[in-house]
Amino acid sequence: MQQIQQRLPVAVLGATGMVGQRFIELLQGHPWFELVALAASDVHRSRPYGEVARWRLGSSMPEQVARLPVLPCRPEALPEVKIAFSALPAEVAGEVEAAFAQAGVAVFSNAKTYRMEPDVPLLVPEVNAEHALAIQEQRKRRGWSGCIVTNPNCSATPLVMALKPLQQTFGIRKVLVTTLQAISGAGYPGLPSYDILDNAIPFISGEEPKVESETLKMLGEWHEASGFSMAPLVVSAHCNRIATREGHLECVSVELERPASPEEVIAAWEHFLPEPQRLRLPSAPVPPLIYRREEDRPQTLHDRDAGRGMAVTLGRLRPCPVLSYKFVALGHNTIRGAAGGSLLNAELCVSKGLL
Amino acid sequence: MQQIQQRLPVAVLGATGMVGQRFIELLQGHPWFELVALAASDVHRSRPYGEVARWRLGSSMPEQVARLPVLPCRPEALPEVKIAFSALPAEVAGEVEAAFAQAGVAVFSNAKTYRMEPDVPLLVPEVNAEHALAIQEQRKRRGWSGCIVTNPNCSATPLVMALKPLQQTFGIRKVLVTTLQAISGAGYPGLPSYDILDNAIPFISGEEPKVESETLKMLGEWHEASGFSMAPLVVSAHCNRIATREGHLECVSVELERPASPEEVIAAWEHFLPEPQRLRLPSAPVPPLIYRREEDRPQTLHDRDAGRGMAVTLGRLRPCPVLSYKFVALGHNTIRGAAGGSLLNAELCVSKGLL
Amino acid sequence: MQQIQQRLPVAVLGATGMVGQRFIELLQGHPWFELVALAASDVHRSRPYGEVARWRLGSSMPEQVARLPVLPCRPEALPEVKIAFSALPAEVAGEVEAAFAQAGVAVFSNAKTYRMEPDVPLLVPEVNAEHALAIQEQRKRRGWSGCIVTNPNCSATPLVMALKPLQQTFGIRKVLVTTLQAISGAGYPGLPSYDILDNAIPFISGEEPKVESETLKMLGEWHEASGFSMAPLVVSAHCNRIATREGHLECVSVELERPASPEEVIAAWEHFLPEPQRLRLPSAPVPPLIYRREEDRPQTLHDRDAGRGMAVTLGRLRPCPVLSYKFVALGHNTIRGAAGGSLLNAELCVSKGLL
Amino acid sequence: MQQIQQRLPVAVLGATGMVGQRFIELLQGHPWFELVALAASDVHRSRPYGEVARWRLGSSMPEQVARLPVLPCRPEALPEVKIAFSALPAEVAGEVEAAFAQAGVAVFSNAKTYRMEPDVPLLVPEVNAEHALAIQEQRKRRGWSGCIVTNPNCSATPLVMALKPLQQTFGIRKVLVTTLQAISGAGYPGLPSYDILDNAIPFISGEEPKVESETLKMLGEWHEASGFSMAPLVVSAHCNRIATREGHLECVSVELERPASPEEVIAAWEHFLPEPQRLRLPSAPVPPLIYRREEDRPQTLHDRDAGRGMAVTLGRLRPCPVLSYKFVALGHNTIRGAAGGSLLNAELCVSKGLL
Repeated sequence: MQQIQQRLPVAVLGATGMVGQRFIELLQGHPWFELVALAASDVHRSRPYGEVARWRLGSSMPEQVARLPVLPCRPEALPEVKIAFSALPAEVAGEVEAAFAQAGVAVFSNAKTYRMEPDVPLLVPEVNAEHALAIQEQRKRRGWSGCIVTNPNCSATPLVMALKPLQQTFGIRKVLVTTLQAISGAGYPGLPSYDILDNAIPFISGEEPKVESETLKMLGEWHEASGFSMAPLVVSAHCNRIATREGHLECVSVELERPASPEEVIAAWEHFLPEPQRLRLPSAPVPPLIYRREEDRPQTLHDRDAGRGMAVTLGRLRPCPVLSYKFVALGHNTIRGAAGGSLLNAELCVSKGLL
Repeated sequence: MQQIQQRLPVAVLGATGMVGQRFIELLQGHPWFELVALAASDVHRSRPYGEVARWRLGSSMPEQVARLPVLPCRPEALPEVKIAFSALPAEVAGEVEAAFAQAGVAVFSNAKTYRMEPDVPLLVPEVNAEHALAIQEQRKRRGWSGCIVTNPNCSATPLVMALKPLQQTFGIRKVLVTTLQAISGAGYPGLPSYDILDNAIPFISGEEPKVESETLKMLGEWHEASGFSMAPLVVSAHCNRIATREGHLECVSVELERPASPEEVIAAWEHFLPEPQRLRLPSAPVPPLIYRREEDRPQTLHDRDAGRGMAVTLGRLRPCPVLSYKFVALGHNTIRGAAGGSLLNAELCVSKGLL
Repeated sequence: MQQIQQRLPVAVLGATGMVGQRFIELLQGHPWFELVALAASDVHRSRPYGEVARWRLGSSMPEQVARLPVLPCRPEALPEVKIAFSALPAEVAGEVEAAFAQAGVAVFSNAKTYRMEPDVPLLVPEVNAEHALAIQEQRKRRGWSGCIVTNPNCSATPLVMALKPLQQTFGIRKVLVTTLQAISGAGYPGLPSYDILDNAIPFISGEEPKVESETLKMLGEWHEASGFSMAPLVVSAHCNRIATREGHLECVSVELERPASPEEVIAAWEHFLPEPQRLRLPSAPVPPLIYRREEDRPQTLHDRDAGRGMAVTLGRLRPCPVLSYKFVALGHNTIRGAAGGSLLNAELCVSKGLL
Repeated sequence: MQQIQQRLPVAVLGATGMVGQRFIELLQGHPWFELVALAASDVHRSRPYGEVARWRLGSSMPEQVARLPVLPCRPEALPEVKIAFSALPAEVAGEVEAAFAQAGVAVFSNAKTYRMEPDVPLLVPEVNAEHALAIQEQRKRRGWSGCIVTNPNCSATPLVMALKPLQQTFGIRKVLVTTLQAISGAGYPGLPSYDILDNAIPFISGEEPKVESETLKMLGEWHEASGFSMAPLVVSAHCNRIATREGHLECVSVELERPASPEEVIAAWEHFLPEPQRLRLPSAPVPPLIYRREEDRPQTLHDRDAGRGMAVTLGRLRPCPVLSYKFVALGHNTIRGAAGGSLLNAELCVSKGLL
């Protein structure tokens, strides 16, 4: 692991929203990164963050953060910044993130805008660390001195982490996933309480196509010569919103290419030691995957904070009458599935000397 | 339809629990059945129902019901009763229901005990009305003058109602269903609030095997000579508990035998006019299946009471990358999936002259 | 009661919001009023209601309502209308309601704007029916051919209904009320789900002053010569938002002027037969007040729909160590506390020949 | 502060329930106490805790605790134990706790049984540390070498902590409190989910009398000669259960003896530095009282964990039209209001050399 001498100055773009706040929370005391600037797409005229934003998380707003001015989302307003974490809404992310990348900033984005671009890594370090190399092609093509690296949709993250060890050990042909997603995934103010109390909503706009396509890109390959190729498997997603605060629970059925016993499947998960854990990246959970043997776990409330919200918890592996196996996966949607995922992406790229 | 001259005297067994209360509620003002007796498995020494039971439903306890004594679950304690609706727990249902059937009472049971027996109908009148004929074989074999007719698990009911028109029109090979089930399905006191508030539990004891096997029996055939045959398809179920009061939401993927356009699938549902609707049974919802065209329906809160809780609401039909189609189904678990289902079974059997 | 020969043509202003929808729901099949027009403050260019509005209530949007065009909130756009029910937001209610009153329309408003005006009735027919006479003064003063009649804040309604019989029988000196209010009181989209799931919020903007002042006006007197006088008592309110869909629960302590036994207090409630019940107004609940003798009632879920949402349920009367008595009151906030209250006001005014 | 050389061996009685688990959680890594034994009132035949108990808290069951045998609740079964923390149900606490006290063990009990006894301290160290001296009288009277020290009801704790600085600075005449209490206060399995989802229940058996009487004892005085005297004030409580997991929110109106400005009241809270904080007891929160200046705080979700669940958060101080002031208080019911309170009591008694 590359030794970090001095903390790199970083900014959060879209700092007032739910994911922006998670970025701020996770950057507190970070060994490699120092939060020096906050920006938002609305006009805040450099007023202090503590006046502009209301803290929505369980923690308290850090005092020094409360005093930071909220700047406009333009690179010239944040001259000292080397890395920008973007929690911008998709409508503005396209232009703003490109402007930062052009200006030499490495942008780690939670927005969907660039995820499926042919020269942009859609990165979960445990799954496809080697995709980070696409940054070089991206710079060449676009003439950027910075870059854009994206992390996937919050539902795709735990799914792809659960699938990766199965793919590399047994091969995967088909995946059918049904999600039970937390309200925080809809942002803030997001979902009206009158819509979800005593209710379940079997629809989240745009979510199912994202899960189905992003999974294939992440499980696919990157070659310098030919670019990204999609993984040769099919994914079908049913996405539901339920009345939980944090944590996306996913019921997965999977068809493997090669036969495997339940013990072998669990072993593939439990022995999974991918690059971020080998590199001991600061935000990499150890272990990345936790298999619970109780018959009723993982549960949203009890397992979402595993590995400080960065681990994915698995359970209930059993034969599926339709595909090969079925199981349950759970990940924290605003930590692992959003801000924490971007942060780990930045750690990976720094560690590999790509920035 | 057979003309009912005089209302038949009926009893509710297991009258104090959640499903027992639903039976009482649905029997108020019933045109064919008159509730004359209540029984429970605990000892209540004939104390009035109003003293023994606390009403858990949204309605109020009917006054004349409050005055009925709670009798022991023995046929000799309820001599005038011709039909007994059983909401007994599985542990006691086996013996008690057999005693009533032996004594000449037609028992319509919500308990799992007899569901998979080779001479007991597992009945949803819209789906397999002809299975009711197995009563005759049952009486012959067991020497009963009464009989036992069961209704399926509350998750299997909406599923099988959604599948039946697809099976008869296109054929079905494979079904994968993930349920989001309401807390009332766990009875009362049932699920502790501390277990489910801000949580989802991906496990309900015994539920998945029931959904997988009961569906095959109901979609299968009954022949007097050979008995029941299971339908030649496979079903895989993931069952989850979430924080909703009533209504089981189900995300279904299905593989059809013959190709069908989305319009044809929807037409199969919307034109479905099975026997209970043709017979105009008092509790038969018209229509039995409601297809909603909004992108985010059915929803648990808004659709569970459709058809006074007896209809199944469908929506979101779309191609499934893994099987043929995916869609969402919703049914009221303690009405359609329990007490209302049993009541409709009794109406069917009376109407067909089987009692 | 005046015989109604032909139904009066009425409109709903602010028809798309939560209270607007309740007005529409309650006007279906009304014996005196015919809903002929819908209006909203946003620009909807006369598009049909079914395209413009999403129905949030448990019921379905009535079909003929779905076809009505959504008109601008100007009297000339609704020429045939004699009565307008207003669910307008306070920001626009002032000007719009005055324009309608000027144009000869009787406006029954749920907005706070005119409630405390010295010539505007703040009316709960069970409590202060005689205040309706202030309309005459209002017309004289303002030169209106129509009028404005308001109903109180949704928390003040059940309180004042519980207090009125105590005031007239024993006299009241002091009232301390703590409310547990449902999320629907915040309108739609209203309260973000992330703010209230697993939370209670001890603050509702502007609510406590409204409860404290409106109660005094309603329990006070109207004299043609001197106008309104406030009731000589003090009210203190703590207002809280909790995670319930509908129904405001209120814990009340009251100091009476004259001693009373618990039986006398309960009798005052149970024998309460005010004017709307004597007049048999179509929306008047009979009885208006229901006292429950169980130790744990009223409960929000089980009692909010009493009297089709128009009755107030009381319970738990017991001595208060600080004031004289304490008890619990519950009312449905969007029916009794909003749309249903306005509707009953209109019925009273029609019945008394005031329009 | 007395220097602790070696950690004292302690046990938890009633270790399997919700409060028992909180005791275990809080004793992990405690600097003065070492958890060496677990006991429960049910028969568990010394089976390991990990087999007998299901962990209900957000944390995981500590591994070494999982291996501890669950012993019977008899002093001879736990010979090495010097201090026992009791989370026993009231039905068994009377006899069991006395047996331990008799056998020389200092029992710190969460049960209500001995709270109002004339020689038993009902202790909140920030409020009435000097009451601990009653132990000496207790030993004398009862001939015990151990002792029993109780902590109050979970609703009384935050109330009395908020009141103490007001009492000592301004004097208090009257208190009216309405609580919004979390479901964990009902223990486990406790409250059925079907009773509380979308509901509020204005009744908790036995709770109001406890709050009203325990507060007087704690705010009263202890004199060796005359024993306990109740504080000369009156308290009235309305207790409600709502759908929150942890944290009791309390709306309080108080009548002071001497006039005070809002600033003086807030200063009394913010300058409150009672004995456990001066002694720097390990579990004493610093500060014990937190006054939030936002208009909508404290909130159950956001403030219950303040001071690791041991601080009480206050807010919304404003004049009360009926008494002098009104405000909101919040405390964590299973930490500060139960296990954490007992633990702090033990720390105080050890620190003062009373054991």
